[in-house]
Amino acid sequence: MTNQKGKVYLVGAGLGNLAYLTLKAYNLLAIAQVLIYDALIDGELLQLVPADCLKLDVGKRGGKPSTPQAEINHLLVKYCQQGKQVVRLKSGDPFIFGRCNSEMAALTANGCEFEVVPGISSALAAPLLAGIPLTDPVLSRCFAVFTAHDPNALDWEALSRLETLVILMGGQNLGEVIKRLQQQGRSPSTPIAIILWAGTKEQQIWTGTLETIVEQTSGILLSPVVIVIGEVVGLRRN
Amino acid sequence: MTNQKGKVYLVGAGLGNLAYLTLKAYNLLAIAQVLIYDALIDGELLQLVPADCLKLDVGKRGGKPSTPQAEINHLLVKYCQQGKQVVRLKSGDPFIFGRCNSEMAALTANGCEFEVVPGISSALAAPLLAGIPLTDPVLSRCFAVFTAHDPNALDWEALSRLETLVILMGGQNLGEVIKRLQQQGRSPSTPIAIILWAGTKEQQIWTGTLETIVEQTSGILLSPVVIVIGEVVGLRRN
Repeated sequence: MTNQKGKVYLVGAGLGNLAYLTLKAYNLLAIAQVLIYDALIDGELLQLVPADCLKLDVGKRGGKPSTPQAEINHLLVKYCQQGKQVVRLKSGDPFIFGRCNSEMAALTANGCEFEVVPGISSALAAPLLAGIPLTDPVLSRCFAVFTAHDPNALDWEALSRLETLVILMGGQNLGEVIKRLQQQGRSPSTPIAIILWAGTKEQQIWTGTLETIVEQTSGILLSPVVIVIGEVVGLRRN
Repeated sequence: MTNQKGKVYLVGAGLGNLAYLTLKAYNLLAIAQVLIYDALIDGELLQLVPADCLKLDVGKRGGKPSTPQAEINHLLVKYCQQGKQVVRLKSGDPFIFGRCNSEMAALTANGCEFEVVPGISSALAAPLLAGIPLTDPVLSRCFAVFTAHDPNALDWEALSRLETLVILMGGQNLGEVIKRLQQQGRSPSTPIAIILWAGTKEQQIWTGTLETIVEQTSGILLSPVVIVIGEVVGLRRN
């Protein structure tokens, strides 16, 4: 135990690489004594911590099972109580489908100080890097963001009426998403873009329509992926 | 004229201060030969450009009229054609209500090379900095982002059914937003948060309900402001 007061920073890593990290996140990595990080974080970010920083990979990679959430919570509390500066590095923005709540509840319950630091979310940056503005004064005065993990949990009648939809983690249920929207009357000719590995060297983009996109991307593992649906896809500039 | 090829970078400044700038934006400011910037950008960002960089303020400040869009477009094209590295610095993320389209169209029409660089959007970061996660596995599987400039342009029936709403530039029409949502059946006890000057020293936050918030914030100039409506406001941790 030291006399230093521990603190946990729940930090958004942006798109995983250095370019889209914030200066605040960069400066926190430089003083981290413990780094607890997810998958989708590029190796160059891991080099930003001091040489003696303890680095713990709790993400799922290469088919290996991920660390159970309870164990991650335990690690955060343990190192904070040891007086360490702990950086919990998460892909994107920690409050957009980042499941921070469990970690914050554990930290609060154990009297650990913490701070959440925003990051560039792929929900917004993936469309941008594909050249697609999510808003437009005429075509898109509103956009909605959701995941397609559980299509039954969503109000498709309401969603189908919005101008622009951004779907995270929707690769596996792409066909189901399209079916639900068409059932609610969305036209088969509605433009759609599929953005794979946004902001990385592996970035790939497909554009098509609700009618064509499944065949266009057939056989491709769509993860990590951001899907954009709406007329704004047509504004894309290459 | 020089032999250097000009390029325009349409760059998101994040919340206006250094902490929430990306490393990519930081590195672009360091090489900028011309900086064309909006209001809401903190002075410390303007110090990041080289001493001989031409700095042009085209934002609206202190009641002065803003530079007409056609004039901004002209400046971007002119300096790009002079072979300059031009940074067009915009608040937040350039593709979220950033009205980049006119600038991109002008650059394209004049054969100017350009690149759009994402920034931290207040739509996501303001709720985070107020301690409000926009998503939650139970309370918020979907959120929508829009402005309240023109309430007649929006589908309130669809919006009222979504779990979480994030409204930018909604200070003046706060009462109208609340009226429309209640007309569609949203309960007067629905939680709401008002976040003023997110991420700056002047940040202020009010939380209440659709029924109470107008009176709570009466007499306060709500700009720049982000409004969050939905049960996630109740998850706020201080």
